[in-house]
Amino acid sequence: MTTAHVFDQAIALTPQGGNLFAGHTSAAYGNMVGPFGGITAAQAMNAVLQHPQRLGEPVSLTVNFAAALAPGPFEVEARPARTNRSTQHWVIDVRQDGQSVLTGTAFTALRRDTWSLDEEAMPQCPSPEQVASGVGSIPMEWVKQYEMRPIAGAMPAVWDGSGDSSLTQLWVRDQPPRSLDFASLTALSDVFFPRLFVRRATLVPVGTVTLTIYFHADTAQLQATGSGHLLAQARAQAFRNGYFDHTAQLWNQAGVLLVTTHQLVYYKN
Amino acid sequence: MTTAHVFDQAIALTPQGGNLFAGHTSAAYGNMVGPFGGITAAQAMNAVLQHPQRLGEPVSLTVNFAAALAPGPFEVEARPARTNRSTQHWVIDVRQDGQSVLTGTAFTALRRDTWSLDEEAMPQCPSPEQVASGVGSIPMEWVKQYEMRPIAGAMPAVWDGSGDSSLTQLWVRDQPPRSLDFASLTALSDVFFPRLFVRRATLVPVGTVTLTIYFHADTAQLQATGSGHLLAQARAQAFRNGYFDHTAQLWNQAGVLLVTTHQLVYYKN
Repeated sequence: MTTAHVFDQAIALTPQGGNLFAGHTSAAYGNMVGPFGGITAAQAMNAVLQHPQRLGEPVSLTVNFAAALAPGPFEVEARPARTNRSTQHWVIDVRQDGQSVLTGTAFTALRRDTWSLDEEAMPQCPSPEQVASGVGSIPMEWVKQYEMRPIAGAMPAVWDGSGDSSLTQLWVRDQPPRSLDFASLTALSDVFFPRLFVRRATLVPVGTVTLTIYFHADTAQLQATGSGHLLAQARAQAFRNGYFDHTAQLWNQAGVLLVTTHQLVYYKN
Repeated sequence: MTTAHVFDQAIALTPQGGNLFAGHTSAAYGNMVGPFGGITAAQAMNAVLQHPQRLGEPVSLTVNFAAALAPGPFEVEARPARTNRSTQHWVIDVRQDGQSVLTGTAFTALRRDTWSLDEEAMPQCPSPEQVASGVGSIPMEWVKQYEMRPIAGAMPAVWDGSGDSSLTQLWVRDQPPRSLDFASLTALSDVFFPRLFVRRATLVPVGTVTLTIYFHADTAQLQATGSGHLLAQARAQAFRNGYFDHTAQLWNQAGVLLVTTHQLVYYKN
């Protein structure tokens, strides 16, 4: 008997009948306060993926982090709000003690081959083998579950207010390597350190409030990616009165744009 | 007695008690099939804005278009799913005949002055006075409700498959001019013609499936903008197997980034 990958253990859900699923927070994906948002998003997405009435593959997901999850059990409700001929709209609610800790919506669809084009080309970067692995001494548990090879815009080594760009580029994959699927791609879409830290080299309390992911890749493209490295790129557009955004992309090593993703993050200052 | 602006007529809602509001589609904002998505998004947002329990100002909104609205009445439910000390998470459902036609979530918050910075600078563009108004002979009613001055990436004049970039830049505001608020900024965030038309100069059926808006501006910045022109910019990142995205920004004429917004659009081909 083999032991399941730490990620599969973390996102495991037990069907409770109807639209309800039971899950449990994972200490392996702990963050400063509560779990890594990416793992909570993946748990929410997994309820849609596991739902017996699901039609098609994930195309978009939005999750809103309403409160930090307490260590322990949680309940996910994934409700198909509208099912059309080839598309389906989902409403998601993650609860602890009857209170919403995450709200969200997802969209799944049967996809067909069409004219396609990536307008946002993968930037020129050194290969994963040319970039050292490691992000320094970062105490959060979840960071250990990813192999990260920062190319540009790594976590500042000194907090001296010296940044001049929020652009980050890194190679990243699960650690140990795991074949990519929609759940792990969901978590990987939240793998970026806060743009404020990079732009400003200043450490302040932060927390993502909403995250949206557009899945350009289908199952075949995820399978072709396998357990290879992803090039992840993120950049802020505005920091304003307590909230900043970022816009991000993830490509596989072959240059296929798998995901475009955006988030809005609270910051205190 | 003055007549209300066409936009205010379109987004008017009648409270039905609790979290429910009654509205009616607006012929003035008709699109090819059903209404302009921006007006439906604004109607959904308006339920949050009108809700007596609302805390703070809109910071983010995601709406998913589950079905084209039929001309006639609709019901909006805007439910405060979680209220924290200075933030609030909303779940939105727009229904016709008891069926969801739009699902969504919103986030409102009390904002405070903090260190702020716009990383995405307004591009160099001619002023509104230097750009001709008009977008050609476009039959959709909603287009008449906006003053549009295209700078780059206008609707193709001929459909010859000749495009090489999806970038669009235009000056835009309500027509007749109307002081900017969160409802009108919501609608303006969806004002872009489909990126596929621009990139490919090919006319195919399209429809937005999900739209996310991050409001960087607060009420004071909207008031300072008044009824001035906004510079709107959009660009696709990927067109893939039936869905393309776009990432967009809206600045006021003073160069303040008011909104960053993203959407995913279905296309047939």
